[in-house]
Amino acid sequence: MECPRGLAGVVVDQTKISSTAGAHLTYAGYPIEELAHASFEEVVFLLWHTRLPSENEIAVFRHQLVSQMVLPAETVRLLLYVAKEPQHPMSILRTTTSLLGTTNDVDHDEPPKILAKMLITVAAIIRIRANEPLLEVDPHLGVVENFLYLMTGKRPSKELARMFSTVMILHADHEFNASTFTARVVASTFADYYSCLTAAVCALKGPLHGGANERVFEMLLEIKEQGLDPREFVEDQVKQKRKIMGFGHRIYKNGDPRAAILKQIAGKLAAKTGNSEYFEIQRQLADYMLQRFNLHPNVDYYTSLIYHCLGLDKEVFTMLFAACRTVGWLAHVMEQRNENCLIRPNSEYVGPTDRHYLGEQIQKRGHA
Amino acid sequence: MECPRGLAGVVVDQTKISSTAGAHLTYAGYPIEELAHASFEEVVFLLWHTRLPSENEIAVFRHQLVSQMVLPAETVRLLLYVAKEPQHPMSILRTTTSLLGTTNDVDHDEPPKILAKMLITVAAIIRIRANEPLLEVDPHLGVVENFLYLMTGKRPSKELARMFSTVMILHADHEFNASTFTARVVASTFADYYSCLTAAVCALKGPLHGGANERVFEMLLEIKEQGLDPREFVEDQVKQKRKIMGFGHRIYKNGDPRAAILKQIAGKLAAKTGNSEYFEIQRQLADYMLQRFNLHPNVDYYTSLIYHCLGLDKEVFTMLFAACRTVGWLAHVMEQRNENCLIRPNSEYVGPTDRHYLGEQIQKRGHA
Repeated sequence: MECPRGLAGVVVDQTKISSTAGAHLTYAGYPIEELAHASFEEVVFLLWHTRLPSENEIAVFRHQLVSQMVLPAETVRLLLYVAKEPQHPMSILRTTTSLLGTTNDVDHDEPPKILAKMLITVAAIIRIRANEPLLEVDPHLGVVENFLYLMTGKRPSKELARMFSTVMILHADHEFNASTFTARVVASTFADYYSCLTAAVCALKGPLHGGANERVFEMLLEIKEQGLDPREFVEDQVKQKRKIMGFGHRIYKNGDPRAAILKQIAGKLAAKTGNSEYFEIQRQLADYMLQRFNLHPNVDYYTSLIYHCLGLDKEVFTMLFAACRTVGWLAHVMEQRNENCLIRPNSEYVGPTDRHYLGEQIQKRGHA
Repeated sequence: MECPRGLAGVVVDQTKISSTAGAHLTYAGYPIEELAHASFEEVVFLLWHTRLPSENEIAVFRHQLVSQMVLPAETVRLLLYVAKEPQHPMSILRTTTSLLGTTNDVDHDEPPKILAKMLITVAAIIRIRANEPLLEVDPHLGVVENFLYLMTGKRPSKELARMFSTVMILHADHEFNASTFTARVVASTFADYYSCLTAAVCALKGPLHGGANERVFEMLLEIKEQGLDPREFVEDQVKQKRKIMGFGHRIYKNGDPRAAILKQIAGKLAAKTGNSEYFEIQRQLADYMLQRFNLHPNVDYYTSLIYHCLGLDKEVFTMLFAACRTVGWLAHVMEQRNENCLIRPNSEYVGPTDRHYLGEQIQKRGHA
């Protein structure tokens, strides 16, 4: 049996977590457009249990997550050391995700604790990079409020927390994308949770996957700083055979449902934070890309501006993606483990055949 | 298009690196039985260039590899810290592989330097665990001799180096196994080399993949220490529905070609090092497994005894597998990069559909 390259369009397994069938994104059967209004904790629970929690369950779950947003002193010491390296934050997250799994007692860590640790790790890397002190979780706030507080040092308004919850929900899962599939392949060897997440971070780091949101902002920055016309920028990139970042998707040919929601948030946040000029560039660029190539913005396009409006450096954008997607990675690792089958494909050998080591050596010696 | 679970038997891409077609293992067209007599450096060159090197090329390549078996002082400092954690060596290797990619100037590291760094890292973790000082590479020795020397502190005899070269060659590649496939998925996002290798280490850590060689030795230890009859041990495991480690392979139904070669090495080394009792247990166990279930030993079976004969702890066996397989991982990452296509499969959603978030919430409130 032979498959298209990149497994494009190939169904490799069943799932009950999320679906992009018909270019509609649903989590456990709920349309993403409706879940955008849910709380982050509800959506995490939904993706992990394929049902929404009761009011009591959600309170317990929120407390469980928030109370575990703490790093062992040992990990903090190593993190301070590692995060100061002059490398990309995703390299640092790759190392620290692995580190989280090398301290004591991690063999019994369950998904809520692991997610909590990942969120606080991402926040800590952002603080260390900014030379700001690490903060402690506020037990009176929810997960999203705390995550924003731990990153930025400011307790967010209700409105900002609501917007950021939506961003996190929209990034939480997307069926068998490259990093999630990586996590499932690793889970299929029965490796531990931290190995699965570390491998997923490795895949997300790639510019063809999670790395795109950072590159979208680099593009916006170039257009703004050089005072370019977005349409001319596009034509110029085309001439140079360069890719315009943040457009198109293998599944969503008529527009990414997440981008429509994120556009609204980006517009509001940009207006509030004096970044309307970027949003205007995005609007013009998106209009032109649609008219010129029939290409729609994807999830990375408006997210990059949202993260910029939060005051974050573009270098940490992909790490934020990782923080949100950890929810989905954990959901898929659990699902893979529950009904496991080692993921081990075949390849077709197309190189030379019937070569002989000894023959060649003797021949070579004969000629010498 | 739908595929069998675990992509079993599914051809996901073409390769010129290795083949298991017809249950014959070949590297770039050369039978593994012939390459078992080659030098390690020749086989690395072959897997990376799909041709054997000239005598001049091999000398240059050997020098390049050996001279780069050095770790930056910064990495050693962190490694000393990380390797002392009470966790499994594969967790430590996962972190240190990532760490190798977070120090300065790694963006330009090429495969020879990366392989050299991985080998010295594995040796360093073994030394640190054994509370032995780290050693420096001996420029007069080849890669395998140095690797043995850096691990054990003893310069190996020619005979031992020859046997261990064969072991490393047999473990160097095996087309699209789970860790190699993981490395290719990560490479397909255009993530860097260290991300690809870190993810591969994550997959190899799993007990269904690289973790098996450690568990083979645990089994031998149990049989020997409790003075069990291997046949009775098998029957007892069957009754308890436990797996007998080191047998069977998805591809090799009539025996793993590597196991036949490794058996000879294990027998010789066991006799030389006073471990013949283990080898006799293996012989009896393998005979009985064949007679009872028609199952043959796989690559992990005799390798575990070989590593024990070298004086290594069973906890580091999988890490040695990683050191050898780094050759293949790098070959496949290069091949994937050269003709890249993002590996992004689809899934079939089989959970509930047509659920509505707002509807359910209102209903719940109505009932309250």
